[in-house]
Amino acid sequence: MIEKIPSIANLVKELQHVPYLASKNLYRIVHYILTSDEKKIQQLSTALLEAKKNIELCSLCFAWKERSASCTLCFSQERDRTILCVVETWQELLSIEKTGGYKGLYHVLGGVLCPLEGIGPNELTIRSLIDRVDETCGEVILATNQTPEGEATAAYIANKLKNKAGKITCLARGIPVGSSLEFMDRLTVYKALSERRSV
Amino acid sequence: MIEKIPSIANLVKELQHVPYLASKNLYRIVHYILTSDEKKIQQLSTALLEAKKNIELCSLCFAWKERSASCTLCFSQERDRTILCVVETWQELLSIEKTGGYKGLYHVLGGVLCPLEGIGPNELTIRSLIDRVDETCGEVILATNQTPEGEATAAYIANKLKNKAGKITCLARGIPVGSSLEFMDRLTVYKALSERRSV
Repeated sequence: MIEKIPSIANLVKELQHVPYLASKNLYRIVHYILTSDEKKIQQLSTALLEAKKNIELCSLCFAWKERSASCTLCFSQERDRTILCVVETWQELLSIEKTGGYKGLYHVLGGVLCPLEGIGPNELTIRSLIDRVDETCGEVILATNQTPEGEATAAYIANKLKNKAGKITCLARGIPVGSSLEFMDRLTVYKALSERRSV
Repeated sequence: MIEKIPSIANLVKELQHVPYLASKNLYRIVHYILTSDEKKIQQLSTALLEAKKNIELCSLCFAWKERSASCTLCFSQERDRTILCVVETWQELLSIEKTGGYKGLYHVLGGVLCPLEGIGPNELTIRSLIDRVDETCGEVILATNQTPEGEATAAYIANKLKNKAGKITCLARGIPVGSSLEFMDRLTVYKALSERRSV
């Protein structure tokens, strides 16, 4: 039925390229667009094009930055330049920033090593990371995820940096805040036990 | 951190107005937009504006239609004009169309009666429905949802149409295809039992 209304069919086609729009929600979003104020859609459309035009990757940390400005992370005077946190993606950088508990620099890998999918060190920003770490760097935090690929990537980087960085650390593993032991999986409980700390 | 990058902050603000973009997915979508081809985003932006410009509600059935063309549902020669299916929203019309099992006309109410939220018969398209149903109409299918408001709306319409339409029906209630009795709620099993049919 949709295919008989070309403007809707075209909108659906374009929206389908956007990830994480489940097919049920897709038509709700189309309905929202059609019912909402023309000015609002104009603003959304402009925001899309402006973001595309004005945003680029920082050539140092590989997070998104305004094209006309220097990177607010790398060139901030308030951040500790002796500590570097390595994350898989920009979204994970945001998660760490949201805690407000980290004031060092970042390095976004752009993914994880995955030989089966043809992703080797050259597909990621590992070379830039190695070039970037020098004697001024007191600590490198490897904040990759606890997936097989994430752990393998961390191990690869740790090996490459072992004589360059002062200290190489990873995130603490254990029971999430607010969870009860009873409902945790065996491996998490095991990690929490074996990596216990004195109080 | 986002607020220091105005083009991203603005895009996030505009995307937040769109319903059903969960906050986790929001940043993934921003990342998708920033990484994808400029031409693709241009096309998305154009599709949004074109849809907004070219689509309007059909004044008869209240489904979306191309502004430059007549309604593909109301003016189709292949559809049975003696049967009318009343649905709450356009998305539910699409669900029925997808089955391919209905070839009559539609009427989109634009919601359900909900006195607590100030939605009375005048806020919906009930008056147009009543005006529309005449002696040529052999059957009206009330396909509202089985919520208290949906059922009340169906009852209200059934009462208004009782001397106008040849036959007033509602959708069958029972066990969904592929489900097992064991996991069904009591009310559904009760409905399936009490509305059983001969085989």
